[in-house]
Amino acid sequence: MANEEKQFVTEITPQKEDFSRWYIDVIKKADLMDYSPVRGCIVFKPDGYEIWEHIQAELDRRFKETGHRNAYFPLFIPESFFQKEKEHVEGFNPELPWVTEAAGEKLEERLAIRPTSETMIGHMYEKWIQSYRDLPVLINQWANVVRWEKRTLPFLRTSEFLWQEGHTAHENEQEAREETMRMLEIYRDFVENFLAIPVITGQKTPSEKFAGAVDTFSIEAMMKDGRAVQAGTSHYLGTNFATAFNIQYLNRENEHEFVHTTSWGVSTRLIGSLIMVHGDDRGLALPPKVAPKQVMIIPIGPPKTRDMVIARSDELFTELKKAGIRVGIDDRADVRPGWKFNEYEMRGVPVRLEIGPRDMENGVCVLVSRISGEKKIVQQDRLVEEVQMMLEQVHQEMFNRAKTFRDEHFYSVDTLDEMKASMEEKRGFTLAGWCGSEACEHQVKEETGATSRNIPFEPEVHKTKCLVCGEPAKHTVVFARAY
Amino acid sequence: MANEEKQFVTEITPQKEDFSRWYIDVIKKADLMDYSPVRGCIVFKPDGYEIWEHIQAELDRRFKETGHRNAYFPLFIPESFFQKEKEHVEGFNPELPWVTEAAGEKLEERLAIRPTSETMIGHMYEKWIQSYRDLPVLINQWANVVRWEKRTLPFLRTSEFLWQEGHTAHENEQEAREETMRMLEIYRDFVENFLAIPVITGQKTPSEKFAGAVDTFSIEAMMKDGRAVQAGTSHYLGTNFATAFNIQYLNRENEHEFVHTTSWGVSTRLIGSLIMVHGDDRGLALPPKVAPKQVMIIPIGPPKTRDMVIARSDELFTELKKAGIRVGIDDRADVRPGWKFNEYEMRGVPVRLEIGPRDMENGVCVLVSRISGEKKIVQQDRLVEEVQMMLEQVHQEMFNRAKTFRDEHFYSVDTLDEMKASMEEKRGFTLAGWCGSEACEHQVKEETGATSRNIPFEPEVHKTKCLVCGEPAKHTVVFARAY
Repeated sequence: MANEEKQFVTEITPQKEDFSRWYIDVIKKADLMDYSPVRGCIVFKPDGYEIWEHIQAELDRRFKETGHRNAYFPLFIPESFFQKEKEHVEGFNPELPWVTEAAGEKLEERLAIRPTSETMIGHMYEKWIQSYRDLPVLINQWANVVRWEKRTLPFLRTSEFLWQEGHTAHENEQEAREETMRMLEIYRDFVENFLAIPVITGQKTPSEKFAGAVDTFSIEAMMKDGRAVQAGTSHYLGTNFATAFNIQYLNRENEHEFVHTTSWGVSTRLIGSLIMVHGDDRGLALPPKVAPKQVMIIPIGPPKTRDMVIARSDELFTELKKAGIRVGIDDRADVRPGWKFNEYEMRGVPVRLEIGPRDMENGVCVLVSRISGEKKIVQQDRLVEEVQMMLEQVHQEMFNRAKTFRDEHFYSVDTLDEMKASMEEKRGFTLAGWCGSEACEHQVKEETGATSRNIPFEPEVHKTKCLVCGEPAKHTVVFARAY
Repeated sequence: MANEEKQFVTEITPQKEDFSRWYIDVIKKADLMDYSPVRGCIVFKPDGYEIWEHIQAELDRRFKETGHRNAYFPLFIPESFFQKEKEHVEGFNPELPWVTEAAGEKLEERLAIRPTSETMIGHMYEKWIQSYRDLPVLINQWANVVRWEKRTLPFLRTSEFLWQEGHTAHENEQEAREETMRMLEIYRDFVENFLAIPVITGQKTPSEKFAGAVDTFSIEAMMKDGRAVQAGTSHYLGTNFATAFNIQYLNRENEHEFVHTTSWGVSTRLIGSLIMVHGDDRGLALPPKVAPKQVMIIPIGPPKTRDMVIARSDELFTELKKAGIRVGIDDRADVRPGWKFNEYEMRGVPVRLEIGPRDMENGVCVLVSRISGEKKIVQQDRLVEEVQMMLEQVHQEMFNRAKTFRDEHFYSVDTLDEMKASMEEKRGFTLAGWCGSEACEHQVKEETGATSRNIPFEPEVHKTKCLVCGEPAKHTVVFARAY
């Protein structure tokens, strides 16, 4: 047993030793994914995919609640479509895979595999939208997209990934901007209250915005190595795509006008984020609302009471399942409880339920929190409420810990030298003033490896001078090294 | 008003006049899809896509209930994978689109867009399966797939389509065959009891089976023009893919053995099928369980009672919605009720709810069945039950009508001449004896345009002689022209 455990523990590289290796160790060992034979593409194994299914179900509910409907557009995008929006083609062309042959024949026009669908959807909206009566169009798509990335990392940056992309069209700028902010707020609320990840909401600088957008807004999360992940984006596209695809409508004054469009998306990189935010040296720690198993029951005690304890465990299992709690039971006789404890901690199951013969006598069982390790003896006849309470508590605690970590790794600097020192000595986000020039932003990246993450809506402090040139600051910006 | 209605009616080609045109008219007019700029690819518009969402949700529930979990495998399949299973490559090669360049560079090995995932999944299973303890593997994937078809038809045959593909691996033939039949039965039950489409279950002849399967089983549905649609298939793959991809496991006797695999799938062609089975000259008729809107409320009466009637309509709307019924309301003042009646009939909404000032005095409203036209006056305080009852009744009636139609168009013949006459004069399915030779099967196809659909498990009659050569019949086969 001791050996078994020891061997187990040494299989995960400690975070402090090598965070990247820790990440790969954990996702492989917890069986979330596998590498595929196609460069940069991963296989989402059932436990990894189920996290995505819970993310999907909840977001889909929220999208529909706010009036959106799902549709599905083709995977293939004709080459000529990309030429229509100049910034868009420049942004995406370097990453496109091309279909050049099909059914034994060379195609007349190459087809890109979609990296995002603004162009295809723009083409269709031109046909669908005639009058202000057709507006707003509020459509979302769940789909796979492909970007042929040079440097890949499971979940966080893969050549093919899964995502949703919302595409809406509106009568005017105000409505489109309201939609852009509404969806950003849905993302913020979802990521904070469902995935237990605190985020910084703000606006991207022009050099970091979506190719073809007027304004891009993002939520940025801090991983446990201090790096940033852009967890979701919402774009106000103005009339850029409407002009490129001639999406005009007859307005209330009977005049032709371009629609104003938005797009917004989150992807399977959320899975990578939640692992890097919550995991520890014992393995995964999954937010209860997306955990494939929220509770794992482990019967304990000597062989002679085994049947009795398992019978009661099965009853508790059924009761929890009936209450809509995702519960599992591991009653294998040939594996010792201690090994099981480690196993499900490593897999990130939020709550462990232990029950043995003495607990049965007392009508109780023990709940153990994955995140704090707290053990709570609870009455069996109050089990459902107690489990629900502990799940809620685990969620809160995960959020609080992540928030504390982020606050502790959030720095403020006045000069580029301070920024350099900050990036080298400490890891985290750094707040600094910025004059608004691309040259200064570029210099920060060159010298520190940090990019501007966003201009936060509510910065902790307001900076007055640009950290590079010392000129008056136009914005206070969050800089960080990013995935 | 009269003109409006007339114009409306003439927009849908009658089924008897031209069934194919009727189909296209209906799906376009009911706003289920649009053509895309990519050959053979369609856009699933929200009402079309929502039908698929309801199909997905129910099947997904049934798959999980039977122990399956979802996963996701790459879109791209290396060319060399197809070479490993001889029949498979011959079957699919003619339909593959190829990615030959990505990110500005020519690829070393061409990548096919998946037409189905046996090969990729076989490759992964080889890594995942070591011992009998790893079996069975029960995985399903929801995905887009591409087959570059020459002749396309919206929903029924498109270059890109959406589907699910189950892929399981088992210790032995018996378990794999049980799984094959279990999934076929789930399909049958789902299609009959959810989509209200009666089907013929049976086994495919060798020439019609899946490329690489040992045995293929199918459910076959009859469209209103008498043609067949293969609505779902389940394959016992034997050790064909296990051998090609070397998926071996250590069995209970500690010996290496190949796993036995299965695969099974249904696709968005189910949407096409339900339209062609249930629709009529007034338009769509949607089975209640997949209809985006199950009930449409239409307030009627003169302007002076309008506000009062709409207020009550809103209450009924809320009540139905709360009961989980998908309900809509059309209270537009500038469109006349008669026009609305036609509109939602055309869109296939199963139940219409009319309410006017006199109904309000009497505490009643009127439910109208899309399928029978029956009008039922019901008490408002029993509305939820009455609506649920009528939805159930509409479902039953749709199934019964489809079954009656099928039975009336199900013929039995003894000779090829009879078959020819049957195919030319009448439309439908034809039962005939078959000796088992590919030559005879081929001759039927050449001379009548009909293909063998399947060898039904429970044929209405047992034929003793082959319709072509007159030799003793090995099987009684259903022949039909097919989509």
